[in-house]
Amino acid sequence: MPRVRIDLFASLDGYTSTGQTPENPMGEDWGRLTAAYAATRTFHERVLGDTSGVGTTGVDDSYAAAHFEGVGAEILGAAMFGLHTFPDDPHWRGWWGDQPPFGIPVYVLTHTAPRPSIPMQGGTTFHFRNTAIEDVLAEATVAAGRSDVRVGGGVSTARDFLRAGLVDDLHVMIAPILLGRGNRLWDSLDGLELTHQVSTEVAESGTTHVTFTR
Amino acid sequence: MPRVRIDLFASLDGYTSTGQTPENPMGEDWGRLTAAYAATRTFHERVLGDTSGVGTTGVDDSYAAAHFEGVGAEILGAAMFGLHTFPDDPHWRGWWGDQPPFGIPVYVLTHTAPRPSIPMQGGTTFHFRNTAIEDVLAEATVAAGRSDVRVGGGVSTARDFLRAGLVDDLHVMIAPILLGRGNRLWDSLDGLELTHQVSTEVAESGTTHVTFTR
Repeated sequence: MPRVRIDLFASLDGYTSTGQTPENPMGEDWGRLTAAYAATRTFHERVLGDTSGVGTTGVDDSYAAAHFEGVGAEILGAAMFGLHTFPDDPHWRGWWGDQPPFGIPVYVLTHTAPRPSIPMQGGTTFHFRNTAIEDVLAEATVAAGRSDVRVGGGVSTARDFLRAGLVDDLHVMIAPILLGRGNRLWDSLDGLELTHQVSTEVAESGTTHVTFTR
Repeated sequence: MPRVRIDLFASLDGYTSTGQTPENPMGEDWGRLTAAYAATRTFHERVLGDTSGVGTTGVDDSYAAAHFEGVGAEILGAAMFGLHTFPDDPHWRGWWGDQPPFGIPVYVLTHTAPRPSIPMQGGTTFHFRNTAIEDVLAEATVAAGRSDVRVGGGVSTARDFLRAGLVDDLHVMIAPILLGRGNRLWDSLDGLELTHQVSTEVAESGTTHVTFTR
């Protein structure tokens, strides 16, 4: 059975970002939160297009590789796509250039009137939907065929799907840092360990990989 | 050099207790938070007095054993000793019976007039101090001799010592549960990873042991 998956970054004190603004949508500490992931060979190959073999190949890289495996459709929140940063630009096509790294249909959630779909190079097509998340997930599931659907974030979108009981696999990469402020990952997710099995693994980088699976 | 040490329990979302009241000072989820520790052979031997050899002997037990090693004096907050639960009982002698498991001098922090010290069976003496935490620590350090001083909690006392830069080793046992509410461990501790080295280890029980050391 195809699964619904989420991968998120958090600090040890449970923050997924700090100082997020429309102009700085990833926030001030994104680099520290994602440092171990950005150091992996998989990130270099799949996101930076650097196939020279640089990058770490340990536990972090195993999770990074799994992140890219078997995903047939993706769902993104409006902010993650940039709709909150560029609300008045009807031609905004995302942060990722002409050839986004998705290579699959990407469903962007919006509360405004949906825009026409945007086909990009490399197999990515951006679709815009302002219907219930269950309906968007149903459409994405059909589009994904036998592959999984990934809810790509941001964290509030991820929480919406988690609270609605729609997520099979949540993988959180916890960096060994304390941010003290920001966007809180775990709020309103209490009891998730009752519906999902929890497993934990520590990478060479000190990153703790926590996985909730059902 | 003797060290100043803290061991704490927390949930994955950073809560050290839920629903604490003077009548229920450990809170509603204490059993779930401490289940892996309470299952160790060391806990059975050192706290329950059961030397029959029952209990887990893996990673959790290693940390539990270390918790009891080399401590020459302990510091407790008023609530942890029970002063908030029994404020009007001048003869209150703590929760631990006639022979408390400390076996060392225990300094109880209080904002009220200090009570006379209480010598107990088995080497424990409770002292009451309403001076600055630095002064209490200095006195406890002398009492501990060549051994370490442990700040035994509760979490607000632990945070006071951490924020004041007085703690060499913080060990947090993180249970793989999400409580969603309660007393927050990590508040105001951001940047602790800049003054201390962080290491992380996962036990067979799923408990994550995070240690900050300087």
